[in-house]
Amino acid sequence: MSASLLEQLIESLRVLPGVGQKTAQRMAYHLLEREREGGRHLSAILAESIEKIGHCAQCRDFTEGELCAICASGSRDRHLLCCVESPADRLAIEQATGYRGVYYILQGRLSPLDGIGPRELGLDKLGERLQQGEVSELIIATNPTVEGEATAHYLAQLARQHGVTPSRLAHGVPLGGELEYVDRGTLSHAFGSRSEMV
Amino acid sequence: MSASLLEQLIESLRVLPGVGQKTAQRMAYHLLEREREGGRHLSAILAESIEKIGHCAQCRDFTEGELCAICASGSRDRHLLCCVESPADRLAIEQATGYRGVYYILQGRLSPLDGIGPRELGLDKLGERLQQGEVSELIIATNPTVEGEATAHYLAQLARQHGVTPSRLAHGVPLGGELEYVDRGTLSHAFGSRSEMV
Repeated sequence: MSASLLEQLIESLRVLPGVGQKTAQRMAYHLLEREREGGRHLSAILAESIEKIGHCAQCRDFTEGELCAICASGSRDRHLLCCVESPADRLAIEQATGYRGVYYILQGRLSPLDGIGPRELGLDKLGERLQQGEVSELIIATNPTVEGEATAHYLAQLARQHGVTPSRLAHGVPLGGELEYVDRGTLSHAFGSRSEMV
Repeated sequence: MSASLLEQLIESLRVLPGVGQKTAQRMAYHLLEREREGGRHLSAILAESIEKIGHCAQCRDFTEGELCAICASGSRDRHLLCCVESPADRLAIEQATGYRGVYYILQGRLSPLDGIGPRELGLDKLGERLQQGEVSELIIATNPTVEGEATAHYLAQLARQHGVTPSRLAHGVPLGGELEYVDRGTLSHAFGSRSEMV
């Protein structure tokens, strides 16, 4: 039937995260009605990205080349290594903080039930890197979920084995948050980790 | 810099409606991490759609061929012509109602300030079609906005000029709606248009 290419377009837009039938329809109509040039560009960039973007040999972040921009840079402090779950987490830290060290991207978290063990996260390679002695502090910035915490403990052990100091991000009440609306776990942790005012 | 292709991908995803910087990032990472095959497919379908999908010669809906599936179908009632603003509106009517007539898609609404007049909506061609005498009723289903209403009045006039009966969708309290939460304009209209119970 003649609508089939449009239907295929709508269907294929649903691979995007958070995009259901209605949104995919709206996107398809929007592209065809008003953004043909942008759509053509998106198609070309998407194909090129999927073909060319691989993982950085050092930190496993996405990159077109052998090394990502941060690992290739001469101005980053290689004694500090920050371990995050995903490239999005790395980007968030990079945008929010003045961190000048380098990163290691797990591309996941330990989850034995899903078959994701240390090897899948490249922790053997991370161990070798810690062994080399250049890194002095491993900043563990996994997410504060059950699996993220388990991963953090594993990473801390790994760091100690190789004589590297593990550290982790502070947990507590978010800035601008109201105590009344902070969840219990966070509040309890913040209360227990209170520090003396100076 | 080595992140540039990824940055270009994120930027180009922003042509999609309702997609800002954060969502585009999430989409790009999702495609690269988990949906490379789907992304490749999306890229191919998108390019093909933009190249091949044009407008139906009769109803201006999107189609790959000369005529869309509905206009080409032999089983639709050509005496009824339903006029909608967009292909999405046509789809909504097609999915919700048992309508068996044909459509005319304006691909917009009268908006003189934006330079959209009768010619831009193809109303000259619609006039010719009404003139031919096959259509007996023009069902006007423009949106109940100021511009949609103006367009509806123009279409009704056009229909009468060619001896075609204009009709429009009923406005009123939506099914399942509560009077308390219905907007004033709708409630006032529904009250004024009350009908005797039989």
